[in-house]
Amino acid sequence: MPPPPFILKKLLIAGVGLIGGSLALALRRAGCIHTCIGIEPTAALGSQALRLGVIDAVVGLDDEQALASSMRGADMLVLAAPMGQNHTLFSAIAPYLEPQTIVTDVGSVKGSVIAQARAVLADKIGQFIPAHPIAGREVSGAAAALVDLYENCRVVLCPLPENESTNCERVRQMWRLAGAHPYDLSAQQHDAIFASVSHLPHVLAFALIEHLLRNDAPGQSLTFAGSGFRDFTRIAASQPQVWRDICIANRTELLENIQGYIAVLNDVHQAIFEEEGATLENIFERASSLRAQWNYK
Amino acid sequence: MPPPPFILKKLLIAGVGLIGGSLALALRRAGCIHTCIGIEPTAALGSQALRLGVIDAVVGLDDEQALASSMRGADMLVLAAPMGQNHTLFSAIAPYLEPQTIVTDVGSVKGSVIAQARAVLADKIGQFIPAHPIAGREVSGAAAALVDLYENCRVVLCPLPENESTNCERVRQMWRLAGAHPYDLSAQQHDAIFASVSHLPHVLAFALIEHLLRNDAPGQSLTFAGSGFRDFTRIAASQPQVWRDICIANRTELLENIQGYIAVLNDVHQAIFEEEGATLENIFERASSLRAQWNYK
Repeated sequence: MPPPPFILKKLLIAGVGLIGGSLALALRRAGCIHTCIGIEPTAALGSQALRLGVIDAVVGLDDEQALASSMRGADMLVLAAPMGQNHTLFSAIAPYLEPQTIVTDVGSVKGSVIAQARAVLADKIGQFIPAHPIAGREVSGAAAALVDLYENCRVVLCPLPENESTNCERVRQMWRLAGAHPYDLSAQQHDAIFASVSHLPHVLAFALIEHLLRNDAPGQSLTFAGSGFRDFTRIAASQPQVWRDICIANRTELLENIQGYIAVLNDVHQAIFEEEGATLENIFERASSLRAQWNYK
Repeated sequence: MPPPPFILKKLLIAGVGLIGGSLALALRRAGCIHTCIGIEPTAALGSQALRLGVIDAVVGLDDEQALASSMRGADMLVLAAPMGQNHTLFSAIAPYLEPQTIVTDVGSVKGSVIAQARAVLADKIGQFIPAHPIAGREVSGAAAALVDLYENCRVVLCPLPENESTNCERVRQMWRLAGAHPYDLSAQQHDAIFASVSHLPHVLAFALIEHLLRNDAPGQSLTFAGSGFRDFTRIAASQPQVWRDICIANRTELLENIQGYIAVLNDVHQAIFEEEGATLENIFERASSLRAQWNYK
């Protein structure tokens, strides 16, 4: 007998911007949602998502009764707001969380959200399955959502000892239907890896623009910037609040990475200062061959 | 009467890789070259360019007679090898340089090549017109050449007081026929601008990969790297020798930029360490709005 089709009778998405909106669009296209309700603290974002048909209804956090009613009978609740809102969202939903509802998230840092979930959800912690789809754009809001944002992307799950494996499998199945490939990592592995390949590069891109701004009126310099600069700084247009939250949530790992990176820059500075061409070429050669070998996806 | 058509009876390109090869392809398509001869110290690169029909003939630096003969009657000589080879090339061509031949280059740093040209060409310095097309790829060699590499790109000229304006105009006209838009800057302005929008970002991209390599076997991290990492590090696959030369040639400006950048990173580190969300958000916000406003080309 084939497995029963995957259906979400009531999907709740808390935070209906780029990430949550794209998930809703993909699952709708896959035909596996009956109803999708947005929980959106920011009224303008909620009405934009509603207008675009990304969600069927929206509730804020201020109307307890509407929130309670929207959560009744929900099978899946995805936290997809900027990470700084997670504590508020956990606190708001906890009183109305029914035992059959799986809670999952999309955050770029896992240790901190797990700690918040444990503190607020307490003995319901087993219902929370931490996840992180590796996809994004430098633009935000439901109007930036893409039905194929997760196509062929990875989604990392960091299952907790308290999670039931059938629930984890339902989260994986949801992401597969959105086009993503699930992988498991521990939260610690996850946070170390993404500090180095995602959070640090974002900090570095923001810092380059800040450096230009400090040096002089950057207008003339930018006139002459080419395609290398364009690609290097694309992520510097990312949402400031989202990245503020990520930097603070993954503080320990990120600080270590920034320090390690400054140490590399100091070595490069030294090699240029001393005009040690061979040292410089060795560093560039190692980097260039690793990057040229790397296959994205 | 319309201006006479722009024709190069004999174009010499010293260094027939990506940059020189793409120029030859574009000028050929524009129908303005009679003969294009490559001067190529590296035999394998020369025969690749010859095989691909990028050039009509190739000479090395070891055969003085062939070099002398190739330079006879040349109207334009473009130095397009990695900058570290410029001194050798100037010395090789100087004895055979005829008064009608315009010498120009494509280097990413202008102060250093001007100093070399002055030292070697001496009273023929007026024949050298420093230039820099703002285009490139992270792959190299004549096989990476693109006929439209310069389409809609800028080319910066840094004319010397000794240059004749009609000769400068011929260099501009050559680049226009290759698709580029000419701009004038002083060598000092040029080197300051490109230290910040090109040389620094390349150093930062190489340094990120070096940081990953120092931290651990980077294989697992790279498995999870996404599109942000892909674009940020594209330029880290660039040619190590080229960038070693650029870093040393623009040493003073680049060292200042690395120091300034480290100061920004230290401020970001401090803000994350102190969990000063507002400071962090301000920096990210400034960067994000400037980058989002910037229109490439």
